[in-house]
Amino acid sequence: MDLIRQHGAAVELNCPRSMPRASTFLWNRALFLQLNCRGYASALHLQPEPGKYAYAPTLEAKSFLQPEQPHYAHHPGRFVYIKDEDSGAVFSLPYEPTRVRTDSFCFRAEPDQASWLIEHLGLALSWSVSLPVEDAVELWQLRIDNRSGQRRRLSVYLYFPIGYMSWMNQSARYEPVLGGIVARCITGYQKLEDYAQIRRLKDHSYLLHDTAPQSWECRQEAFEGEGGLISPDGVRAAQLQNGEALYQTPAACLHYRLELGDDDTRELRFAFGPALNHSEIKAVRERYLVPQGFEQARAGYRDFLAPALDAVQINTPDYGLDAFANSWLNRQAFYLGHANRFTTDPQTRNYLQDAMGVAYLQPALARAALLRCLSQQEPDGALPDGILLHAEAQLKYINQIPHTDHGVWLPLSLQVYLDESGDYGLLQVPVTDRHGSTRTVSERVLAALRWLLDNRDARGLSYMGQGDWCDPMNMVGHLGRGVSGWLSIATVYALRSWAQVCLQHGQADTAAELKTAAAELDRCVQEHLWDGDWFARGITDHGRRFGVRADDEGRIFLNPQSFAILAGIATPEQQQRMHAAIAQQLQSPFGLALCEPPYTRMHEDIGRVTQKFPGAAENGSIYNHAGAFYIHALYASGEGERAFALLRQMIPGPDPADYLQRGQLPTFLPNYYRGAHRLHSQTAGRSSQLANTGTAGWIQRALIEGLFGLRGCRDGLMIQPQLPLCWPTAHLRRRFRGAEFDIHYSRGGSELQLSLDGQNLATPLIRAIEPGRRYSVYVQVPSA
Amino acid sequence: MDLIRQHGAAVELNCPRSMPRASTFLWNRALFLQLNCRGYASALHLQPEPGKYAYAPTLEAKSFLQPEQPHYAHHPGRFVYIKDEDSGAVFSLPYEPTRVRTDSFCFRAEPDQASWLIEHLGLALSWSVSLPVEDAVELWQLRIDNRSGQRRRLSVYLYFPIGYMSWMNQSARYEPVLGGIVARCITGYQKLEDYAQIRRLKDHSYLLHDTAPQSWECRQEAFEGEGGLISPDGVRAAQLQNGEALYQTPAACLHYRLELGDDDTRELRFAFGPALNHSEIKAVRERYLVPQGFEQARAGYRDFLAPALDAVQINTPDYGLDAFANSWLNRQAFYLGHANRFTTDPQTRNYLQDAMGVAYLQPALARAALLRCLSQQEPDGALPDGILLHAEAQLKYINQIPHTDHGVWLPLSLQVYLDESGDYGLLQVPVTDRHGSTRTVSERVLAALRWLLDNRDARGLSYMGQGDWCDPMNMVGHLGRGVSGWLSIATVYALRSWAQVCLQHGQADTAAELKTAAAELDRCVQEHLWDGDWFARGITDHGRRFGVRADDEGRIFLNPQSFAILAGIATPEQQQRMHAAIAQQLQSPFGLALCEPPYTRMHEDIGRVTQKFPGAAENGSIYNHAGAFYIHALYASGEGERAFALLRQMIPGPDPADYLQRGQLPTFLPNYYRGAHRLHSQTAGRSSQLANTGTAGWIQRALIEGLFGLRGCRDGLMIQPQLPLCWPTAHLRRRFRGAEFDIHYSRGGSELQLSLDGQNLATPLIRAIEPGRRYSVYVQVPSA
Repeated sequence: MDLIRQHGAAVELNCPRSMPRASTFLWNRALFLQLNCRGYASALHLQPEPGKYAYAPTLEAKSFLQPEQPHYAHHPGRFVYIKDEDSGAVFSLPYEPTRVRTDSFCFRAEPDQASWLIEHLGLALSWSVSLPVEDAVELWQLRIDNRSGQRRRLSVYLYFPIGYMSWMNQSARYEPVLGGIVARCITGYQKLEDYAQIRRLKDHSYLLHDTAPQSWECRQEAFEGEGGLISPDGVRAAQLQNGEALYQTPAACLHYRLELGDDDTRELRFAFGPALNHSEIKAVRERYLVPQGFEQARAGYRDFLAPALDAVQINTPDYGLDAFANSWLNRQAFYLGHANRFTTDPQTRNYLQDAMGVAYLQPALARAALLRCLSQQEPDGALPDGILLHAEAQLKYINQIPHTDHGVWLPLSLQVYLDESGDYGLLQVPVTDRHGSTRTVSERVLAALRWLLDNRDARGLSYMGQGDWCDPMNMVGHLGRGVSGWLSIATVYALRSWAQVCLQHGQADTAAELKTAAAELDRCVQEHLWDGDWFARGITDHGRRFGVRADDEGRIFLNPQSFAILAGIATPEQQQRMHAAIAQQLQSPFGLALCEPPYTRMHEDIGRVTQKFPGAAENGSIYNHAGAFYIHALYASGEGERAFALLRQMIPGPDPADYLQRGQLPTFLPNYYRGAHRLHSQTAGRSSQLANTGTAGWIQRALIEGLFGLRGCRDGLMIQPQLPLCWPTAHLRRRFRGAEFDIHYSRGGSELQLSLDGQNLATPLIRAIEPGRRYSVYVQVPSA
Repeated sequence: MDLIRQHGAAVELNCPRSMPRASTFLWNRALFLQLNCRGYASALHLQPEPGKYAYAPTLEAKSFLQPEQPHYAHHPGRFVYIKDEDSGAVFSLPYEPTRVRTDSFCFRAEPDQASWLIEHLGLALSWSVSLPVEDAVELWQLRIDNRSGQRRRLSVYLYFPIGYMSWMNQSARYEPVLGGIVARCITGYQKLEDYAQIRRLKDHSYLLHDTAPQSWECRQEAFEGEGGLISPDGVRAAQLQNGEALYQTPAACLHYRLELGDDDTRELRFAFGPALNHSEIKAVRERYLVPQGFEQARAGYRDFLAPALDAVQINTPDYGLDAFANSWLNRQAFYLGHANRFTTDPQTRNYLQDAMGVAYLQPALARAALLRCLSQQEPDGALPDGILLHAEAQLKYINQIPHTDHGVWLPLSLQVYLDESGDYGLLQVPVTDRHGSTRTVSERVLAALRWLLDNRDARGLSYMGQGDWCDPMNMVGHLGRGVSGWLSIATVYALRSWAQVCLQHGQADTAAELKTAAAELDRCVQEHLWDGDWFARGITDHGRRFGVRADDEGRIFLNPQSFAILAGIATPEQQQRMHAAIAQQLQSPFGLALCEPPYTRMHEDIGRVTQKFPGAAENGSIYNHAGAFYIHALYASGEGERAFALLRQMIPGPDPADYLQRGQLPTFLPNYYRGAHRLHSQTAGRSSQLANTGTAGWIQRALIEGLFGLRGCRDGLMIQPQLPLCWPTAHLRRRFRGAEFDIHYSRGGSELQLSLDGQNLATPLIRAIEPGRRYSVYVQVPSA
């Protein structure tokens, strides 16, 4: 049997051991739930700061999501033990905690649901979860079919560990009136001034049932006993002890005795989540644990996802690409644009690029994000390090460190939004900042660009400060002298991109100003950063050029090359040399490394990035965000074949060996695959399992603009595809400016030919898009 | 077999399941290691801030030690798997992770060592750890005796989980040159300004061996495999994979194949700890993994402990009391005075009381602590919330919240030090603070007392601010009006205690001033705080008296009563009423509750203490620190029988049911036993397992000053014992002002009679102590 199967949107993994970290995630407005195939779960809810409702067994650090997060026996998860009351046999769903090998196993990820389908001991079991659109609640359903040909007596135990909630106060008990187990804590705090916030926290965790249990247990330790999680005392006993957790680690354990005749089916439903108080919990019961409650929630969730998923649909000879792009890439880009990475202070760079990605799916979301970002611009044109999403939000973690690149992403994202939506009027919309100062969108973009231009040294290059796109590259320029090669180059791209927009919108003077500035910066880049075969990454405070041939570590970086192509800085000859160097030095079996060789020791003139583990994250991983820039650059420069090969390589599979090494399901693009394949081949390719990455937006862009060649402009929709030569046909359906486009591609002839509704088009441009209209376009792509 | 046996200093627990949290701890200048009977370990080292070298499997919060800390399968620990290569049988030392029931089990705590003695499958195994005095290293020894009557082929696997070290960089590999596994990380950080500190951290963890292994594994997950910790894949295989951890959770696993003839013995030694770099690790090998290395370290550690343990030795009819007091109470008081709770900013209140406790054992330690504390006094006489022990130390956690009581503890601790040491010259020693201002010790104490007197309201009562002795009682007086009844009372005690000192040292004027102030405050207390049967705990910002009959929760608090007796405020009639109320309301089967009934809901005019779990910590637990005050007060007021009953009740055992319910070994006094016995009888009595508590110092004082009646004074040593009536004889040997005292107590006659070296003494006072002299004293205590 194939390790992984795909049926439309559904991705199925048929083994819990081969890719133990393989995961999918669900989210809604209030909740993020990442589940791995073995049943471990990492969940956050917003209150409005991210909080937990199932905890580690020890006091956890408040932190950002970590890559490759390991699991362990007592990690939070959602488990069911099944005991055959006649034979005494015990196994668990989905796989943990008992790790009993079942007759069959299937972990199925769908955009609106995660489920496990298990057959064992003559039983067919389904264990699934979905979310409603608004509420912070997981809706779990267990279905058991008796296919054994005989009457069966079973005990079923829900086991939802809740973990170490708080050192101040934690408890749990069964609440008959609410119908379930409610755990309660007071989040630990010491400062009086924190009390006002503490009292608003959703410090209850509940597991509600639709069917009353025979017995229950609220004490993790009492349930587990000396048998351990592999064979808990609670499961071995005739029934649970109905125990209350009294400043003891809580768990929600519910026990059911079921008798099933042959072919009988039983279904049990549960709701798990955080709440402020009992009345919120009661409301959950009344909304979801009622007839059709789950069905309505799931239908609502499908309606919530549908507009984003339907926005672009492709049909190509590459089934794996179609399945991924149609359901999962759209979904990931929508997630990022919708949920802002489940933080209340998304890094400005991320926030803008997530807006760019979602512009293709729901332009209104992008518009709101862009305006919010602009309203937080500083008077001098600088953008803050993070965008505050609510009144009490504060800049946290990496956003407390100043970065110099945020302004670059503003024109780039805005351009995509404008071209996608046709909402060019936005340029004149006034935006008032917190100082009460009002400027139009146009003026604010210009201010951001001027800030970038002002923030340069005597050589004309962009200061690095404590970091650019690369957060941990914090010691190149911290003394105020070091410059970022990449940022200098990216600024040219931003200037030239925005000059185009200005030119199209009657701001010829501004366009000229920007072009002049770009040309000057271009010259500085060429003078100071070209290293013979590629552009350097920067020049340190002490004047040392790095990311150059002379370096034994961090010799070549991908981003300066990608942006030099996009910016129009690299000459054709330079491009050729760069591509060759990239292919030779950065290519790995799992994609392009961000830099090579990875750093293996601290470089005090480069900084924290050199302390990261070689091949992980910014230190030379297959950092997909950077890979996506390069793919976009390849398309932008007409290198469609190479671009497609890299794009395809970013999506795991279909080779089983590829799945196994990456450990990643084709349900989202992770922020990285492990690099350092020469140094650490054993771990090269491993997925970070983190879906929070600007990759999705740029791959969305590469796919739509590059591969399928669809780009909006003032006059309508341009069509300049770069399909792989091996594709005889392809089809794309998408929403664009309120119209529906059906675009049929086929290969043939020697020139690009287009017809719209049977009429040939002289230029590859569909003008004057009429909202509501359905466009049927045929595109003939020249053979070779 | 008895659950617990005591042989002199050794305490043995013969079952790993009955008291699963039962623990002991070892410490030295750099390392604190708490081990529970099942093999789980919590360790800190100082660098100089507390750090870890074995971590949880997930990113942990930096925090203070938590009570009743639960363990879980992947909790750090020190384990050995034993596999019989012929039968395939596997079990583990000490009990976790396999939880196999061995033929015999013994967890033995000694002051300088923790060990397990296990018999299973014809093998006798000993697994033990000790520390040297200076270095941050655990010295582990495994000894296997084959007593099976036949040749045995074994595989032995050390399994030291190292856990999730850092998200930035973590790895581990076998280092043949160093002879062991070295794990390495870069502690996660983001701010440039943290780099200087980060680079000084001991981010290496090592496990060195004296004998090279057959194979090894550095990846936790690879060692564990699908078998789980109960039956790891690594142990089931013929040998380990010699794997390197590459940004994967590290573990140190070493595999040995041993063949033992009948009666053969094998010994393996290991060193585990943190280091800055390889040369530090090399130094550990050269110092300890050499012939006699362990023996010398242990001898050194015994020499380090000996002066403290030998300072006071008792011999009474109560074997459990003797065993505890002679080895463990002394050790705990020494630990507290020596190690300052393994923090670099001990709370001032704790620091002073720990100095008081160690004054009986090593007066020089107390002296240094008192002087350090005084050097951090504020110009207005206030003491800071924490005492900074090194130049870069900062006030953390609870020390960021202002408390009003620190000044009270200064005269109380100083008085004990003076009376114990006879070092009355200290009073005139000048102490310069960080502002450069110099005042004598005497002047500084007076300033602290005046600060207390100044910090009172119009009623004459002491402001509560954001907390007094009770840290979380933070909303009684945060508006600047509420007062602390306890602090008002304790201030009287401090004033009168210090007035005594002044009077004895020619400062009659000051003594008079203090006495006048005390009398006035006494009157205010009587006027505003007496509630008919006990003293109120305070009066809130809004003028509500609390800790009074009218309250349904927090009706009566122990501390105001204890201190009212000590301060001489309570009249005999009041004392009688208070004792009756305490006996009736606060007494539980496990000791006296701090308050009753515990709070079950937030009281916004009292604060955070009311949010703690009922019966835990300051919210109505058997808080031993408070219990010790009351015991001291009972002795001070001649209520020796009652005092002894409570003192004895604080030490677990000897009733097996008492051990089981408390889960505490008689190796230290925990900061609390769970209270709320009416509300939560199931958990009442459970030990917090935290040895950081001012209890030890006060019980030391109650034992020496109260029970055995030995108190220093200007003229020498006063002897006024209050032995329990049931003791026919008792003996105490102690060091006092450089002399050795042998004091033999016997019951008889109708009056107290003393003889020194055969000469009867007219008064119970031994004058003019000569250092170096041995005093033999006979004390006859009247019968009934």
